[in-house]
Amino acid sequence: MDALEKVTGDARFTADVQLPGMLYAALLRAPVPSGRITKLDLSAALALDGVRGGLTLTDVERIKIDGVQILEHDVRYANQVIAAVCADTLEIAERALHAISCDIDASHPVLTVDDAVAPNAPNVRPHGNLPRNTPRKFSRGDIDAGLRDADVTITREYRTPVALHTALEPHGAVADWSGGMLTVWESTQGIFLTRTELAKAFGLPLSKVRVIKNYMGGGFGAKNGASHATYAAAALSRKLGRPVRCVLDREGEQSDAGNRPATTQLVTLGAKRDGRLTAIKLEAKVPLGAAGWLGGPARIYHEIYACPNVHTVETFAYVNTSPMASFRAPGHTEGAFGLECAMDVLARELNIDPLELRKRNYADRDQDKSRPYSHKALDVCYEAGAERFGWTRARAARPSTGRVRRGVGMASVIWGAGGGPPAYATVRLNRDGTIEVLTGAQDLGTGARTVLAQIAAEVLGARLTDVRTILGDTERLPYASNSWGSITTASVGPAVRVAAEEACDALFDAAAGILGTEPSDLESHDSEIHAKSNDKCVLFRDVCEKLGDVMIIGQGSRGPNPDKTAIGAFAAQFAEVEVDTETGRVRVLRIVAAHDSGRIVNPTLAESQLEGGIIQGLGYALFEERALDATLGLPLNPTMHDYKVPTIGDVPVIDAFFVDTADPVANHIGVKGLAEPPMRTQSRMLSAERCLRFR
Amino acid sequence: MDALEKVTGDARFTADVQLPGMLYAALLRAPVPSGRITKLDLSAALALDGVRGGLTLTDVERIKIDGVQILEHDVRYANQVIAAVCADTLEIAERALHAISCDIDASHPVLTVDDAVAPNAPNVRPHGNLPRNTPRKFSRGDIDAGLRDADVTITREYRTPVALHTALEPHGAVADWSGGMLTVWESTQGIFLTRTELAKAFGLPLSKVRVIKNYMGGGFGAKNGASHATYAAAALSRKLGRPVRCVLDREGEQSDAGNRPATTQLVTLGAKRDGRLTAIKLEAKVPLGAAGWLGGPARIYHEIYACPNVHTVETFAYVNTSPMASFRAPGHTEGAFGLECAMDVLARELNIDPLELRKRNYADRDQDKSRPYSHKALDVCYEAGAERFGWTRARAARPSTGRVRRGVGMASVIWGAGGGPPAYATVRLNRDGTIEVLTGAQDLGTGARTVLAQIAAEVLGARLTDVRTILGDTERLPYASNSWGSITTASVGPAVRVAAEEACDALFDAAAGILGTEPSDLESHDSEIHAKSNDKCVLFRDVCEKLGDVMIIGQGSRGPNPDKTAIGAFAAQFAEVEVDTETGRVRVLRIVAAHDSGRIVNPTLAESQLEGGIIQGLGYALFEERALDATLGLPLNPTMHDYKVPTIGDVPVIDAFFVDTADPVANHIGVKGLAEPPMRTQSRMLSAERCLRFR
Repeated sequence: MDALEKVTGDARFTADVQLPGMLYAALLRAPVPSGRITKLDLSAALALDGVRGGLTLTDVERIKIDGVQILEHDVRYANQVIAAVCADTLEIAERALHAISCDIDASHPVLTVDDAVAPNAPNVRPHGNLPRNTPRKFSRGDIDAGLRDADVTITREYRTPVALHTALEPHGAVADWSGGMLTVWESTQGIFLTRTELAKAFGLPLSKVRVIKNYMGGGFGAKNGASHATYAAAALSRKLGRPVRCVLDREGEQSDAGNRPATTQLVTLGAKRDGRLTAIKLEAKVPLGAAGWLGGPARIYHEIYACPNVHTVETFAYVNTSPMASFRAPGHTEGAFGLECAMDVLARELNIDPLELRKRNYADRDQDKSRPYSHKALDVCYEAGAERFGWTRARAARPSTGRVRRGVGMASVIWGAGGGPPAYATVRLNRDGTIEVLTGAQDLGTGARTVLAQIAAEVLGARLTDVRTILGDTERLPYASNSWGSITTASVGPAVRVAAEEACDALFDAAAGILGTEPSDLESHDSEIHAKSNDKCVLFRDVCEKLGDVMIIGQGSRGPNPDKTAIGAFAAQFAEVEVDTETGRVRVLRIVAAHDSGRIVNPTLAESQLEGGIIQGLGYALFEERALDATLGLPLNPTMHDYKVPTIGDVPVIDAFFVDTADPVANHIGVKGLAEPPMRTQSRMLSAERCLRFR
Repeated sequence: MDALEKVTGDARFTADVQLPGMLYAALLRAPVPSGRITKLDLSAALALDGVRGGLTLTDVERIKIDGVQILEHDVRYANQVIAAVCADTLEIAERALHAISCDIDASHPVLTVDDAVAPNAPNVRPHGNLPRNTPRKFSRGDIDAGLRDADVTITREYRTPVALHTALEPHGAVADWSGGMLTVWESTQGIFLTRTELAKAFGLPLSKVRVIKNYMGGGFGAKNGASHATYAAAALSRKLGRPVRCVLDREGEQSDAGNRPATTQLVTLGAKRDGRLTAIKLEAKVPLGAAGWLGGPARIYHEIYACPNVHTVETFAYVNTSPMASFRAPGHTEGAFGLECAMDVLARELNIDPLELRKRNYADRDQDKSRPYSHKALDVCYEAGAERFGWTRARAARPSTGRVRRGVGMASVIWGAGGGPPAYATVRLNRDGTIEVLTGAQDLGTGARTVLAQIAAEVLGARLTDVRTILGDTERLPYASNSWGSITTASVGPAVRVAAEEACDALFDAAAGILGTEPSDLESHDSEIHAKSNDKCVLFRDVCEKLGDVMIIGQGSRGPNPDKTAIGAFAAQFAEVEVDTETGRVRVLRIVAAHDSGRIVNPTLAESQLEGGIIQGLGYALFEERALDATLGLPLNPTMHDYKVPTIGDVPVIDAFFVDTADPVANHIGVKGLAEPPMRTQSRMLSAERCLRFR
């Protein structure tokens, strides 16, 4: 529905916002990964023509992000923001950065988990390098008994690199303090969470902070709340009394706006001869960077396959690199790589078809809490995917020989995509019969405006072109949660449906009076209401016009999910790749992805998300890796030129589809999330090493 | 509640809106009041550096305001807009106007009603000079019988001048076409009406037009919908593909943004010897200007006093002067002047105290439809006002002699202030316990933000500082009607109360669980809830925090008024003035105003409105008059320097108060309107001629 705005350039992104008297902020970043600032002198920068002010530690002492201040005496990673200046133009602000005088007493950086946990390791964070001072452990059953009980055990170590979100639109905000209110335009996946964080940081009541998001060029988890740019813009605006724009440049985006942390996964699997898993064991190491939450790879080990004995240990450590952030199925994507690689090794050891091995360990209940799944069509995905891919035929083919060889692989997906927290929506009819859907959700670029409008249009029997969805304003729209965890359609969709049903009831009541019949006698389509008994009809707009100032308004909400069932999205993905055994070059030839995300509201948008996820996974597996100088701790490829995301030339034939079976329990529109699943196992399948070893 | 923003300059008015790439429009105005444009050539203007485009008749042929196009071949009044140009700065745009080449075949203007109705008068409007081709007549009872039945009859003619609204903030808009949507920031009393007008003018669905109004520097009726500035800005933005600002300069505001039309009122009253009216007769003439609705003086003659026989004739005519617009109690203010002057003449003839004469004709029912009043405390106003003024003592005093003489006068007020059409509101609590009131009403500067917040705070038992009111956005806020007819508090207030009650119920339900009691056991104040039975208490914010993402939201609406009762605001105003019998200079010494507007929600704001209305009435009576060259038809004083509004030095001691008795029937908050009553009879009381004749 917003294609026109996007292709014509009419769509206004955060960086397009311009306010009277607005200033531009530029950020000074640390040239070393570790040290202490001994001198920071902005006076020469502030004296420049057009420079209006600056920000140093003393301005922001009470502002904390994830427990870390936005400006600190301590440098904890390279490219950390250490000061900001604000000027009439961005060019002046950026030039002024060079006039800042800054001395740093550099120290030796901690760059790996092993370094971080070594005795006498310097502290990356004041309270030590281990979050909660201990690794995170999980046990189910008896891992030792499970390993003893196994006919076959295998152990392998897998490593995944640091990956960067690389959203087309960088982080950025325009902040405006006015009349004791802080208004922020922000490229964010969570307007209400950003509001909460800003209110807390600046000591404001929630009603005095407004967060607005119009269009957005991707988030992938790195934009869940307020960012450095947000806090810097808000703090500068407060200090200078003028609106301030702070948008990260590409280098800032690539080096200090979150990443998927690296992992090391030491995996042991034990199984009976028939393939049934008796033990899953994981020892993982995750360097989080200088801050971050504990997004580790273990959870998929706990839940994807039926296994009574599971033991995982994740050692997270703070290191002198830029902080991690959620990234499209955080933890699961990394974990899927390790576990599914190990499953293939196990299949080889057992001489069982890898797909068959997965089927034999099919979990029909949530493994953690032993709850039934609301609906699980992974078995259908296995069958349909294998059929479309020609799995049996491909497996039976003679192994390729010569320099360039081919191989096939597959993997399973699980993701908790039931929708999460409550959401609220309003559906109302204007006097001309046009319809507005209002909800404080946000559209990352995935099409929420269209999907929510479709739901309202279908309930009301309205033309889709008569419906507009209005999103992205904490002050004026009903509450909805972050657009994360693939939840928007599943969370907000049911609320829109309820609101549309309420509006439809009111509309039919009014129409029944006009048509001389009962509401139950009515049906609607194309924004017109028909009475079945007397064949009369009336347009929505004629009903609304007749009601005059009496408005048709429906309110809807969606409560929290009941805890009795587990809700998951599932998928099976298959790939065929070609490897040049001399150069190591991998070419992906084709991918088949069969997904169960419940009912699919908009196939075009949904399939686009599958394709996007698959391509992003392909980049993660084949090309993408944040390169860091192992001694100096400096990022080596924080640009689009050096950090290699896939181009259209790298993209294979993708046959991505949904089994499209509405989940009858998850919610009353039968949908589950779909944004994150396609990314997750794709990455694993494309490991060149595995393809070569595969058959 | 918004005082801080206003005094610090933080409050953003329409002219403060600035958008990326915004252009500035300037309007070319006709130098003669009547004629036909024979040539209009913008090419030299468009060739100037920085000029981006222009607007002529061909651009706007389908855009009509009140049946008149915004640009026409025909010039119907001096200063009519005939073209527009748009440039990078306002200075360039204004300079470019001088480069427009325009020839007008001027004709002799029609300037008075008598001219307009003369045989062979040129047509001001294509279909003639008389709206509906006939005067407007009204009859109740038998006027001839009433006059025959009278013991005393008097006849007088009164004239009122054209007055200008002179709002501090001129009309203006910023229009932005983007992605097929038209967004307009507008200084308007009616965001939803402006939306309707724009949608109609530009052929857009209502859902594709958004009207936003933040702060406003007065309207007084001239800003009820879209203005020339709005249409010009929108048409230019559509044409040029960039945002366009069009704000009237003061001369445009004073000469082409509405006015209170002049009247001539020939009044005949008949009464019995005891003062009871037997006949009220009016013949009025109202030159509307080149357009306008039929706002005439007759209605107050019909309704304010009990009289069985009433006959009024109003002859409206289109003339070659700028169009009239609603102006603070349109028609009533003019009519009150004529009727109340005549009542004083009658009192003198009958030798009855003027106050006593009014009491003897007290109407306890709506005279037109014979409905009972919901509540009428005019009698209390008479008593309380007379007491505070010292009416009896003043009347009994020896008439002053000498050059400077003193006199006293009084008058009655009636205004239909029951609230009008439906309104909708939302009241919601944030997770920190702060409260937001959302409604699509607008605040003219009269304090709606504060009053609506008070209503919500009182219902909820919240601290007022915890409540914020959010107004002025058609796209994101619930529908409310125009802020006209003194309706905002009476229309929107009840909707806010219902919404707050619904929110309070939800809040108490949640609190009862926390406090281990029943909701009926709870009471709240200062944003804290107490259980009467166990003396426990909990803060709003703790309840909300506990609810997490489950929001407390109340929805409220107010239906249309039932037609069975008449709802009116009433007042009695008293004045003492001093007249220099040689120079004619009048000094107003003191004014007492006793008003019945039902329950007063905010005494400070309400009294401020009384004072504002009284001062505006004083200006109307003593200083203000649009001067027009009687031959050329050109405005002579379209500036703040030449059009004399009262200064603080002209303002007497004002003792304005409310009898403050809640109207139990009008609505469930007991309020009635109060914006327009104070203006209305004030003007009449200050007629120097009357003061001199008075005692």
